[in-house]
Amino acid sequence: MSAFLNLAVYQKDTVALEHIAGRLGWDQETMMPSGSIDDRVEEFSAIEKLLHARRSSAELEQLLAEAEAENLDAVQMRQTTLIRNKFERTKKVPQDLAVALARLTPKAHKIWVEARENDDFSIFKPVLAEVIVHTQDLGAALADGTEETPYDALLRRYEPDGSSEKITKMFSALRGPLVALRAAVLNRAQPPELDQIFDSGKQMQVAHILAQSFGYDFSRGRIDKAVHPFSSGSSSDVRITTRTSERDPMNCFYSTIHEVGHGAYEQNINATYAFSVLGKGCSMGIHESQSRIYENQLGRSRGYTAFLFRQMKSVFGDFGVRNEENFYKIVNRVSQGYIRTEADELQYNLHIMLRYDLERALISGDLNFEDLETAWNDRFEADFGCKVDKASDGVLQDVHWSEALFGYFPTYSLGNVYAGCLFEKMSEDLPNLENDLEKGDTSRATDWLKVALQRHGSRYPAEELMSKACGKEPSVDPLVTYIESKFSEIYDL
Amino acid sequence: MSAFLNLAVYQKDTVALEHIAGRLGWDQETMMPSGSIDDRVEEFSAIEKLLHARRSSAELEQLLAEAEAENLDAVQMRQTTLIRNKFERTKKVPQDLAVALARLTPKAHKIWVEARENDDFSIFKPVLAEVIVHTQDLGAALADGTEETPYDALLRRYEPDGSSEKITKMFSALRGPLVALRAAVLNRAQPPELDQIFDSGKQMQVAHILAQSFGYDFSRGRIDKAVHPFSSGSSSDVRITTRTSERDPMNCFYSTIHEVGHGAYEQNINATYAFSVLGKGCSMGIHESQSRIYENQLGRSRGYTAFLFRQMKSVFGDFGVRNEENFYKIVNRVSQGYIRTEADELQYNLHIMLRYDLERALISGDLNFEDLETAWNDRFEADFGCKVDKASDGVLQDVHWSEALFGYFPTYSLGNVYAGCLFEKMSEDLPNLENDLEKGDTSRATDWLKVALQRHGSRYPAEELMSKACGKEPSVDPLVTYIESKFSEIYDL
Repeated sequence: MSAFLNLAVYQKDTVALEHIAGRLGWDQETMMPSGSIDDRVEEFSAIEKLLHARRSSAELEQLLAEAEAENLDAVQMRQTTLIRNKFERTKKVPQDLAVALARLTPKAHKIWVEARENDDFSIFKPVLAEVIVHTQDLGAALADGTEETPYDALLRRYEPDGSSEKITKMFSALRGPLVALRAAVLNRAQPPELDQIFDSGKQMQVAHILAQSFGYDFSRGRIDKAVHPFSSGSSSDVRITTRTSERDPMNCFYSTIHEVGHGAYEQNINATYAFSVLGKGCSMGIHESQSRIYENQLGRSRGYTAFLFRQMKSVFGDFGVRNEENFYKIVNRVSQGYIRTEADELQYNLHIMLRYDLERALISGDLNFEDLETAWNDRFEADFGCKVDKASDGVLQDVHWSEALFGYFPTYSLGNVYAGCLFEKMSEDLPNLENDLEKGDTSRATDWLKVALQRHGSRYPAEELMSKACGKEPSVDPLVTYIESKFSEIYDL
Repeated sequence: MSAFLNLAVYQKDTVALEHIAGRLGWDQETMMPSGSIDDRVEEFSAIEKLLHARRSSAELEQLLAEAEAENLDAVQMRQTTLIRNKFERTKKVPQDLAVALARLTPKAHKIWVEARENDDFSIFKPVLAEVIVHTQDLGAALADGTEETPYDALLRRYEPDGSSEKITKMFSALRGPLVALRAAVLNRAQPPELDQIFDSGKQMQVAHILAQSFGYDFSRGRIDKAVHPFSSGSSSDVRITTRTSERDPMNCFYSTIHEVGHGAYEQNINATYAFSVLGKGCSMGIHESQSRIYENQLGRSRGYTAFLFRQMKSVFGDFGVRNEENFYKIVNRVSQGYIRTEADELQYNLHIMLRYDLERALISGDLNFEDLETAWNDRFEADFGCKVDKASDGVLQDVHWSEALFGYFPTYSLGNVYAGCLFEKMSEDLPNLENDLEKGDTSRATDWLKVALQRHGSRYPAEELMSKACGKEPSVDPLVTYIESKFSEIYDL
């Protein structure tokens, strides 16, 4: 066997263990009995210990050195580089710290759920403090020997080529146009809100139709409910979750489409990459570009909302909206709202900027966790012009910090920016796409994404992948142009 | 740290990995998408490799030797012995063989499901042949250096102190009385069968009531549906499954109670044993004694069936049975039937004897898999006096061989025998138990089982545990007396 093949065989079991850890996470959020958390902590701890050992073992170091000395082709070289990067980063993290985080986060997540249900940040605060300290330690360990800050080292867990320098620049370019447009739009009359009860079971029925319309393969996936929707898994077992609220079916539908974007991306990766380091999405920014383009540029388009309108009418009967055009405006309504995941395309990135600034300050130590709720509420009022009414609409709304996912939030906006670039190119390549979408036929769009981007998995670094897909380097401009044009038209500016 | 403590810490992660493997198995049977089997095979393979390595590592050998040299108390000694036994047995099995079986059985299970749905043994035959060869190799490896046969070595995976000598003796003592009683009973008039459609959702509603009535703790468990009901997990996450058939609600109810017996046993083990080698049921015979005593001596008693009758009436309305006494007779109806899991208490062990003889012949090589279906059908006709009508009623009815569980079947009968012993003693200790059961109150019975047996987990070997619980050595007599008395009364012999 070649040295590279030996490395690949070793890596295969590592990937399988990563899959298993993901499966346990999925189970925790969807199926696990409420009283089983202590067992699950032991299970996560055991598997994290093994993964940490495998990713930083002397055996791996030897396999890597032997493979690197071989004559590798470009695909093998990319794999070896990715495994090497993970090896070097893992080696910097003490096993005790990795295991401590793996033990802490399932508990912190459970406490977050309780705190959110009780609308009481003080319930969450002690465990959040622990999570922050451990994450600071992790950031410091990862940044050791480099010139990056601990926050950047954390961010690169999700965006390997990302940095806060690039992110801050991106937000600077976005903020001005979005704030101006928001002010203009909020000055105009708003379409009415839906004002009816929508049966949860029927919402799930529609959710299945939508998932199918976006090419999600149920023979290799499933939909369940979770407090915070997520997708999970790679290769031939990619599951998604959504949630239902009887007064807000759009939450269910667009959460579903968003997660289908993540899931379909994983399902569409070149099958020969399965159980290799290439067999998953290449960065969270790229991942979010898929979820966001499915959800927004495609899912909230005039064409697709017409399809959704007809689906809803056939499942719920008349639900008080006169026609497709009114429904399009309701779906894209820009209103004062607290919740990031329910935000319209115009305001969404403002929610992210708030989190990005706060979490950087938490990791650097400039902001103490004791002051987080106040800091959140002050910033929210400054950016959105209204006071946060309760913790579950504010600092407790997102799952991420309970799971130590510091550095994750900016990848949502990066995903929006990438989605803007991809949609610009897709629209050039696929004339009259709206006609397809109106019939609920996304196949030309999703095939385009599959060929241009999804099938490659982690074959290329994110920015290179984007440049290949779009024929030019990514920038914020297409997203800004798209949002300005869409909302100016809807709000008759 | 003491050497024993070091060993216990090592063992804890091994147990956690065993839990994880169990969780993956549960997922495969209940939640996994149909097209995900190839991924799951890689996951099982990776975890089996790790488990095999952990259970036979030089590190463990060292830890064991150091612990064994210490002054251990009785509980520590028992743990060390159990870990040592597993170590010695694992060492005999080549890792390649262990992994090959772990890869093969999920596939074989899937093919068994297909073959069963299509009522076609030929679909299952090729993969069964593979399973048999691998299991023969496993038996030979385990028997190496001992005086036991490969089949006995396989059987001891489930019944550490079992042997075919003891099992054959047990069946000899059971067969005569059961065959004679069966002939007498089948000569008498039979109560009518239920003849109605019972909604599946409502069956699950009743199943939940029954599980609760037997003290199953839903905060540490859950019920789902599976093709072949099973229970899974230990400690604080013990899940059970059942199935529904619209014409046969009893199948759902008694499968549920059976699995609750397994699940409650695991839930009731001394919590301080969690994540040690003591924290699970001590043998499958003991396990089945719990499932069978819940299902039969308690669940099919005159008292409990009266409770069930009232529950069914309140959920389904009048379902064509006049009173509790008629219902008791229907529940305990002895009729010609093909299916082991639906068999009455009288005939159940005859189904096991058939499987026991066939599987011993398969493993020894006396019976070729090509001839298995014919051998099954011939033996069934000889024992039960009617021809098997289709493969799903015959050789394809049970999941076990697809999962390489050769040596497992006899533990069901051993469980029945143990259940007979336990019920004899319980009835002496708890006067007027039927009065409680009639109210659906099983607490005195289940508390008795918890104290006498369940809480001990694997603290004692099976036969010692039984002797402690019953105050005398186990024998078949209490079971035979119980069955003879129960069915003579019902059938007015």
